[in-house]
Amino acid sequence: MKILVLHGPNLGLLGRREPGIYGFAGLDEINRSLAETAAELGVEIVIEQSNHEGELLDLIAAAGDEFAAIVINPAAFTHTSVALRDALAAAGLPAVEVHLSNIHAREKFRRRSLIAPVVSGQISGFGPQSYLLGLRAAADLARRSGIGD
Amino acid sequence: MKILVLHGPNLGLLGRREPGIYGFAGLDEINRSLAETAAELGVEIVIEQSNHEGELLDLIAAAGDEFAAIVINPAAFTHTSVALRDALAAAGLPAVEVHLSNIHAREKFRRRSLIAPVVSGQISGFGPQSYLLGLRAAADLARRSGIGD
Amino acid sequence: MKILVLHGPNLGLLGRREPGIYGFAGLDEINRSLAETAAELGVEIVIEQSNHEGELLDLIAAAGDEFAAIVINPAAFTHTSVALRDALAAAGLPAVEVHLSNIHAREKFRRRSLIAPVVSGQISGFGPQSYLLGLRAAADLARRSGIGD
Amino acid sequence: MKILVLHGPNLGLLGRREPGIYGFAGLDEINRSLAETAAELGVEIVIEQSNHEGELLDLIAAAGDEFAAIVINPAAFTHTSVALRDALAAAGLPAVEVHLSNIHAREKFRRRSLIAPVVSGQISGFGPQSYLLGLRAAADLARRSGIGD
Amino acid sequence: MKILVLHGPNLGLLGRREPGIYGFAGLDEINRSLAETAAELGVEIVIEQSNHEGELLDLIAAAGDEFAAIVINPAAFTHTSVALRDALAAAGLPAVEVHLSNIHAREKFRRRSLIAPVVSGQISGFGPQSYLLGLRAAADLARRSGIGD
Amino acid sequence: MKILVLHGPNLGLLGRREPGIYGFAGLDEINRSLAETAAELGVEIVIEQSNHEGELLDLIAAAGDEFAAIVINPAAFTHTSVALRDALAAAGLPAVEVHLSNIHAREKFRRRSLIAPVVSGQISGFGPQSYLLGLRAAADLARRSGIGD
Amino acid sequence: MKILVLHGPNLGLLGRREPGIYGFAGLDEINRSLAETAAELGVEIVIEQSNHEGELLDLIAAAGDEFAAIVINPAAFTHTSVALRDALAAAGLPAVEVHLSNIHAREKFRRRSLIAPVVSGQISGFGPQSYLLGLRAAADLARRSGIGD
Amino acid sequence: MKILVLHGPNLGLLGRREPGIYGFAGLDEINRSLAETAAELGVEIVIEQSNHEGELLDLIAAAGDEFAAIVINPAAFTHTSVALRDALAAAGLPAVEVHLSNIHAREKFRRRSLIAPVVSGQISGFGPQSYLLGLRAAADLARRSGIGD
Amino acid sequence: MKILVLHGPNLGLLGRREPGIYGFAGLDEINRSLAETAAELGVEIVIEQSNHEGELLDLIAAAGDEFAAIVINPAAFTHTSVALRDALAAAGLPAVEVHLSNIHAREKFRRRSLIAPVVSGQISGFGPQSYLLGLRAAADLARRSGIGD
Amino acid sequence: MKILVLHGPNLGLLGRREPGIYGFAGLDEINRSLAETAAELGVEIVIEQSNHEGELLDLIAAAGDEFAAIVINPAAFTHTSVALRDALAAAGLPAVEVHLSNIHAREKFRRRSLIAPVVSGQISGFGPQSYLLGLRAAADLARRSGIGD
Amino acid sequence: MKILVLHGPNLGLLGRREPGIYGFAGLDEINRSLAETAAELGVEIVIEQSNHEGELLDLIAAAGDEFAAIVINPAAFTHTSVALRDALAAAGLPAVEVHLSNIHAREKFRRRSLIAPVVSGQISGFGPQSYLLGLRAAADLARRSGIGD
Amino acid sequence: MKILVLHGPNLGLLGRREPGIYGFAGLDEINRSLAETAAELGVEIVIEQSNHEGELLDLIAAAGDEFAAIVINPAAFTHTSVALRDALAAAGLPAVEVHLSNIHAREKFRRRSLIAPVVSGQISGFGPQSYLLGLRAAADLARRSGIGD
Repeated sequence: MKILVLHGPNLGLLGRREPGIYGFAGLDEINRSLAETAAELGVEIVIEQSNHEGELLDLIAAAGDEFAAIVINPAAFTHTSVALRDALAAAGLPAVEVHLSNIHAREKFRRRSLIAPVVSGQISGFGPQSYLLGLRAAADLARRSGIGD
Repeated sequence: MKILVLHGPNLGLLGRREPGIYGFAGLDEINRSLAETAAELGVEIVIEQSNHEGELLDLIAAAGDEFAAIVINPAAFTHTSVALRDALAAAGLPAVEVHLSNIHAREKFRRRSLIAPVVSGQISGFGPQSYLLGLRAAADLARRSGIGD
Repeated sequence: MKILVLHGPNLGLLGRREPGIYGFAGLDEINRSLAETAAELGVEIVIEQSNHEGELLDLIAAAGDEFAAIVINPAAFTHTSVALRDALAAAGLPAVEVHLSNIHAREKFRRRSLIAPVVSGQISGFGPQSYLLGLRAAADLARRSGIGD
Repeated sequence: MKILVLHGPNLGLLGRREPGIYGFAGLDEINRSLAETAAELGVEIVIEQSNHEGELLDLIAAAGDEFAAIVINPAAFTHTSVALRDALAAAGLPAVEVHLSNIHAREKFRRRSLIAPVVSGQISGFGPQSYLLGLRAAADLARRSGIGD
Repeated sequence: MKILVLHGPNLGLLGRREPGIYGFAGLDEINRSLAETAAELGVEIVIEQSNHEGELLDLIAAAGDEFAAIVINPAAFTHTSVALRDALAAAGLPAVEVHLSNIHAREKFRRRSLIAPVVSGQISGFGPQSYLLGLRAAADLARRSGIGD
Repeated sequence: MKILVLHGPNLGLLGRREPGIYGFAGLDEINRSLAETAAELGVEIVIEQSNHEGELLDLIAAAGDEFAAIVINPAAFTHTSVALRDALAAAGLPAVEVHLSNIHAREKFRRRSLIAPVVSGQISGFGPQSYLLGLRAAADLARRSGIGD
Repeated sequence: MKILVLHGPNLGLLGRREPGIYGFAGLDEINRSLAETAAELGVEIVIEQSNHEGELLDLIAAAGDEFAAIVINPAAFTHTSVALRDALAAAGLPAVEVHLSNIHAREKFRRRSLIAPVVSGQISGFGPQSYLLGLRAAADLARRSGIGD
Repeated sequence: MKILVLHGPNLGLLGRREPGIYGFAGLDEINRSLAETAAELGVEIVIEQSNHEGELLDLIAAAGDEFAAIVINPAAFTHTSVALRDALAAAGLPAVEVHLSNIHAREKFRRRSLIAPVVSGQISGFGPQSYLLGLRAAADLARRSGIGD
Repeated sequence: MKILVLHGPNLGLLGRREPGIYGFAGLDEINRSLAETAAELGVEIVIEQSNHEGELLDLIAAAGDEFAAIVINPAAFTHTSVALRDALAAAGLPAVEVHLSNIHAREKFRRRSLIAPVVSGQISGFGPQSYLLGLRAAADLARRSGIGD
Repeated sequence: MKILVLHGPNLGLLGRREPGIYGFAGLDEINRSLAETAAELGVEIVIEQSNHEGELLDLIAAAGDEFAAIVINPAAFTHTSVALRDALAAAGLPAVEVHLSNIHAREKFRRRSLIAPVVSGQISGFGPQSYLLGLRAAADLARRSGIGD
Repeated sequence: MKILVLHGPNLGLLGRREPGIYGFAGLDEINRSLAETAAELGVEIVIEQSNHEGELLDLIAAAGDEFAAIVINPAAFTHTSVALRDALAAAGLPAVEVHLSNIHAREKFRRRSLIAPVVSGQISGFGPQSYLLGLRAAADLARRSGIGD
Repeated sequence: MKILVLHGPNLGLLGRREPGIYGFAGLDEINRSLAETAAELGVEIVIEQSNHEGELLDLIAAAGDEFAAIVINPAAFTHTSVALRDALAAAGLPAVEVHLSNIHAREKFRRRSLIAPVVSGQISGFGPQSYLLGLRAAADLARRSGIGD
């Protein structure tokens, strides 16, 4: 079973970007933790990061043929990208939305997720742990739906 | 007379994507119908699809020198892209906005088009037929404005 | 196959009324163009205009027995008449909403159509051409639904 | 004691119109039930239906001289007609607003009644039974106010 | 010079209707005062009242050929009728909107006039005197515009 | 057939509480009228009043095993209790919402009922008669649904 | 009978200020017309202009002992000054609000008058004629109320 | 290390209540899964359910002395209880908010959580798995904060 | 003269709860200050605290027979409890609303008090002193109204 | 210790101005009560009233050198004057906002205080007693902050 | 060429007022920098500060005869003074709005400028440098418009 | 010291695009002026333009290592791109937002800048001069912060 993990815009800056909000862990460190959890869960993961909305759309459009589920941190696109919402709705795969920070405790415009209504669920506020819980949820969802068996 | 037909984000998934909303026709099928109608109307068409807002902006910026009108299905960008609106307003060409689904009968955020106020008109809800009516309208507008003669 | 074409309030003033917005074509001229397009499409049309919301409701209530589709320019009632919406929803016929001007580029209150969510689709902004495209769409919808065969 | 029962726009279509919402009972059937309940309550009723707001206004304006109370299903006018509100406020008679469907469980615009603040009370959601409960309430109000004795 | 005076819905009830708000003067009494003021101003007036929006639209549509100005109390239609607004905008005549009560001191929905933005001005709150001031304003406007000379 | 009648918070104060709004009838008097109407309708009723939202939730959770329908005056909880809404939605019984006063004619926050969208219907504004009509409606609904036979 | 006429902020610039909106008449010219109309009506007028809200408050606070009515063009303070509203409400005199331009046809923030709910009525849109109609209305109100006799 | 698990109102009905939204698992089944995960994580859990807001407040007020973290499904109180928010903010313990259903994909009023801004994070949409992920997150948070060591 | 002092939800945590907002004084300390001020004013006080809205309602419902005034800190219920508002409105006693923190300087949802419109006045922002000022105000109000003499 | 007491606009009219809202006490009477309470508290007071926002700003700007606290009834400026808010925020003195009437029970626009977020606290609704409680609170705040010792 | 520099309310407090927001430079220091930049640009400047809106209006009304441009920091009046907006719109001079702090990063009510739509442009957030850039912009605008040559 | 100047979407069309709003200067011309001002200020500049949001994000992410400040005209992205906001917030560099047109005087949606709250300041409305003032401000900010020394 393969799961696609997508990091949205500006996440390449993790560790350097506003550590009071996003913590000191860099993206590499999160990716290593993801790999460990994937191994523990017995799933294969592919990880991508992009600052380009169009690239994320392309990756999701192509995901259906290869992956059993998607874990996505849409970052800033969470609040602005109807295109990402449409792509995920069209993908036909279980998807989990994750956030490092607690988006419900920040600026008002960050409390609305355009993505949440079309994914299975949302995990927000646990730092890098949000990704690990999200991977766990995605593997569980994929197993129940029988995708990727 | 040449008319540019632009398909916005996720439209490459047509036929596979939520057929209850968007129908079973794929993009190729729509493009073939467009070609037939173009032939009937005696106009030449160029068709592009992109998931990248920037590419659509580039195409529109370059359109003025080559095309007499634009038919565009902005898809998700309809509701979020001020940049697309500005590009169309700057293009100096008659433009027609088309939608497969009836966007006025869907989620509230889909009812607002940032694009509509800067194009000539909008056609929404007729499936692939929306494109064909849009092409007809664009040809008519171009003829009246004398562009591309 | 018979199609009912309904002109809403104040459309009798066309040609005289704010030509900057609605153009110089009078209602008679639009009706003649409609007749020509109907002939081209091989459909029969009946055209009515009324300033009375109640008369439009009566016409729609009676349409089901005689017509295969409706083309309606609800004009000012577009934005205020729940009764017209309910009548069209109850009619059980494919219906197409048309507007001469681009209602999405005008006063804010004109951007909301109470009618659009219950009809098949909306065409707005092409002047008299909106009616002709609307008739074309209505004929297409009626043929697909098999009404009036 | 005479009570005026008013059916608003499109109610002539009952039984044919969206039976999932309004049920299968036609207006004649509701009127027969009303007659039976009137007989049980010992009141006389006059029943009118109109698609024309102006006709309803005329009927209400004339009601004060003849009737002791009004039962009205304003249908679509519930949400749009300040004129109907003003007419009822001016009538000087107890009035009961009834609805077949539960308007509070439908589209947002149907949840606001312009009529409710000027009538005695509102009954909504019980199908034809709403009328019968409304007639019962109207008879009770008329008796208490001593109108029509 | 002829001026058309239009009384909107429910104004036939004046004197009987909520006298705390609208005063004890009946419509006949207001019409007599209007006739006196018209005589003083040297203008001819025609007065109409209707509960039917469609009739008011018909009267306004026909006014351009006969009248130099319109004085209108749109009553409840003030707040709901886009059709009346469009008719007045199309009429091409100076128009004055009058109200017996001070609409700015009443329920919130009465504070918005759909009519005011398309007429010359609005007079509100002076009881029957509102009509007389309105007639004076209309005569003045007509004289300045040279209509009806 | 047994019907549960629930009085929400502060209703124990009836007769003493703001009689201009709620009338002079005390809760005992209303309960006696309910008993008479129940006898007339041939149904058994159990009546409870509580100021504690949690107690109302407990009563509704347990109602499914014993009752065929619920009549509830949620009083202040109408406008604030999502928990009560969820309990009624989960109860799987026909339910009728009643109000002594006309909530649509009072403060703006009283016009929104969180309860109404999940019950069969709402009766508001008839004083103690609201309960009697509500009991009648509940008995009718229970009979039609066959619950409690 | 003495009537106080108050000109609010920036009205000293009349004739020079945005003549497309406010016309070419200067304040002196308006004051001369006011004097003529006052003479015709047999009333005495005192005219003041101030750019200082506090001065207008002082003038109104002192008006009750000397004047029978107030005609005020609050200009920009119309939309922002609760203090002016409170002063007029406390003055205990009939007051008439006048505007040169049609404030209901301008920017959205100009459509709300904080003053209108506490005065007798509002006259808006007739240029200098607004003042003359306002003086006429004020004299009429003062006579009816018997103030200043 | 002890963790308090709180089930909010109506959760005692799980399995019976709207299974299309909440699934078929009863509360006992969820509690058993929680016990298994607790064992796996090496933490002790105490589980409470209450329909009474006041009881939940009492439990949280007392939690600080005994527990290292809280997992709470506030259910309906999520959207209405400022008191619960204040109690959790005052508790001085890491807390995790969980929801069975995806609250961001339901009615608009369910999308706002009063609780989320004062807890560490929120997990929503994974059915009973939401609780298990929440317990995992809570244990992780408690370990990092050193509470309960 | 007896005055009832009510502490709302979570106030038992004072001194421990967010001292940056609520200060370091515990509830016992506030109660002792209240007792001292009561002695100074020559009034008797009874103090209650509850986390249960229903208990506060019960206490207020019973207060009319024993107390001359109420001082209440509704805490979180200030912003959510229509039931508390209704209970206070029904109590027929002068009531004073007090808050330790300046609620007008905190989160937006804390700025709206459902309670304030039905009590005599509100005192907010002075820490424990708010209670002492509130007691003083309540004693003054009770003396003026002659209740409890 | 010296305390500055500021009366905002129109308060010179007290006793004459809408006594149903503001009571029959004139400003002199309130000032005498303030003097008595000041004597009781052992503080010196200086009292100013102005209808001019600019004068109030000047007084507050100069207050820091002479006074230990400010008691201010901003009256109408409460709701409109950002300048007053900025002046108080800049003053660096404890300040108490007082209102004669219960502003939370009046028109909607009076419920928002621009001043409250920058002062220590607000007292509203107790008539002249609001000033006396405010003076007491100000003296207490000044003593605690050590200003003016 | 002469340029008028206007400092709005409370700016006399600069250096003492909330230095975290406005910096430590006093108004004298800013005025000296302005004089230096004026000398560099070869323009003459006149600087005024007032806490009185009316004085600012008077200064602007008189500016047209003497000055070629205006630089204004409207401070608190930015958000509340329609009168200032009207004065600037009437002045017929290029005007530049400046702010020391970044008003777009502060309280929501500070983000709306009533002034900005009627001036040439706005400079915000650069401390005293905002004034110097503003003077530069004003000199440039005056030169291009040819005023004051 | 090096400063990065970023031109957002559609700015490549300058001079051709809506010159009534944006002026006749092309991007090359603006860039030459920037080079001249940079020379005058003794700073080095690098200028980039992109229609692709992702490219702008990449440029900003890489800027921290090379540049001392950023001048950005985010054009259409001003109003829609949370990603751009996040990138600038993460960049750790002084940034200045510039606009050719006065965005506060245009469509409502252009008045809100998502960018402004995270940059040092905003300059809007001075045509190409906005860039030059912005460069001046950026150089000043960089010098004060000591970046790039």
